[in-house]
Amino acid sequence: MRGIKVRKADGRLEPFDRRKIVRTCMKLRVERAEAERIADKISKMAYDGIPSSEILSAIYEEVKKTRPEYKHAHDLREAISMMRPKPDFEYFIGITLSSLGYRVESARILDGRCVEHEIDGVAMKGDEVLMVEVKHHVNPHTYTGLEVILAVHSTLRDLMEGYRLGLHRYPFTAALVACNTKISQHAERYARCVGIRYMGWRYPRALALEDLIARYKLYPTTMLRVLKRDQIERLGDRGIVTLKQLVETDTDRLMGILEIDRKEVEEVKDKARAILG
Amino acid sequence: MRGIKVRKADGRLEPFDRRKIVRTCMKLRVERAEAERIADKISKMAYDGIPSSEILSAIYEEVKKTRPEYKHAHDLREAISMMRPKPDFEYFIGITLSSLGYRVESARILDGRCVEHEIDGVAMKGDEVLMVEVKHHVNPHTYTGLEVILAVHSTLRDLMEGYRLGLHRYPFTAALVACNTKISQHAERYARCVGIRYMGWRYPRALALEDLIARYKLYPTTMLRVLKRDQIERLGDRGIVTLKQLVETDTDRLMGILEIDRKEVEEVKDKARAILG
Repeated sequence: MRGIKVRKADGRLEPFDRRKIVRTCMKLRVERAEAERIADKISKMAYDGIPSSEILSAIYEEVKKTRPEYKHAHDLREAISMMRPKPDFEYFIGITLSSLGYRVESARILDGRCVEHEIDGVAMKGDEVLMVEVKHHVNPHTYTGLEVILAVHSTLRDLMEGYRLGLHRYPFTAALVACNTKISQHAERYARCVGIRYMGWRYPRALALEDLIARYKLYPTTMLRVLKRDQIERLGDRGIVTLKQLVETDTDRLMGILEIDRKEVEEVKDKARAILG
Repeated sequence: MRGIKVRKADGRLEPFDRRKIVRTCMKLRVERAEAERIADKISKMAYDGIPSSEILSAIYEEVKKTRPEYKHAHDLREAISMMRPKPDFEYFIGITLSSLGYRVESARILDGRCVEHEIDGVAMKGDEVLMVEVKHHVNPHTYTGLEVILAVHSTLRDLMEGYRLGLHRYPFTAALVACNTKISQHAERYARCVGIRYMGWRYPRALALEDLIARYKLYPTTMLRVLKRDQIERLGDRGIVTLKQLVETDTDRLMGILEIDRKEVEEVKDKARAILG
């Protein structure tokens, strides 16, 4: 495989890496031996300049053979990009932070020293009081750029001064930008330099969204191909944005929300349970 | 006229104000007596809920009768929105700042303490060293919002720290956001609070773009209806973005740039001179 390059969605080339395929398979809860077998198979068919999307499709084709529930599921990253930014994705981030042990308060308008700011949430744990800014990109390959982090930094400082002046009751210690995509290298350097925390796709390791989703089983309802857009929105309007919540919701209630009969609701729940594993 | 309201482009209503019509006419260099006559005429035809655009059209119709050169001219605000953001509008802002006595250096990449920043320009006069950020909106009714000013503020701070660490040679004293539109009230409050300066449409009085244009005769080439888009772009590629520069450019050279004959170039120059007055 030496010398073979993969073309990423943003056009950059990077060396083909068989271990990445093994990791991706295992994230989809495929056993290691099977993951190794799939990686071998895909390594053989890979060619120089192969798009990463083609590799991902091939992985899904293979994985479906051992885990048939993925036939009914969208790819996680795509599913998250399909969520409504508000209220669904914001609420989803709230649930994720709660799983991490934070006490979360949603959308607030707070006075800084200079102006008032609309913030998406406050997350508190021990001595930490985080100002939470949520960014959702419909295109999962869009990077969150430097401008966002620069603006969040000024907002945080203005709110910290507002607290000292007694204009609100949150003694913020840091800001957290929670996003469904990656952060640009430039933005990442700035965030690290000034102590702004970031939760996004694969970065940073400690708060990588995909890892948190796997650890706490926070799969979104948008993964279920069987649900139509308006059904997902009606669920979201009632604060049901994860498969776990869906499975735990009373069947009679779901019949009303989804506007389908008991048998169909049970099928939806079965597919959700299969993904939850 | 008591009680009659005017509907602004953004949908807000405000009381009809005859004096505004007089002021608009006089900005178009109409004599006061004539401006009063136009204001009377338009006051009579105004009705409750009249769009401000309809009033502006009526003003132009009247003004054209005494100043026929406006037949060949786009409205200034619209003309500026028609400029290419780069390089034309950035260069135009540079010329405006030069007219105010600043020594201007264009686009720079400078190291802050945390990251490098692309800035649109540096403007220096006496003890002032301004970091210049240029924003151009195609829609002249778009407001420049708080997020822009928040980001500029963090950039300025990072560059000020970069200077103290010896990473670049500009001892910035403030930032200037130069824009072709208005700034939102929210953004204005923040800018004033933290000392960020702003040049835009009608705000602040001291640096209102339209006043500077009138004072220094900085009318853009996009005002001339007789010029086609590609001709304006070819002028812009050579740094010719104002009518004054156009008039001062050698006719033979303009024949080559505009791809028209001598007689047509002279006509273009005549129309430009008429607007310059």
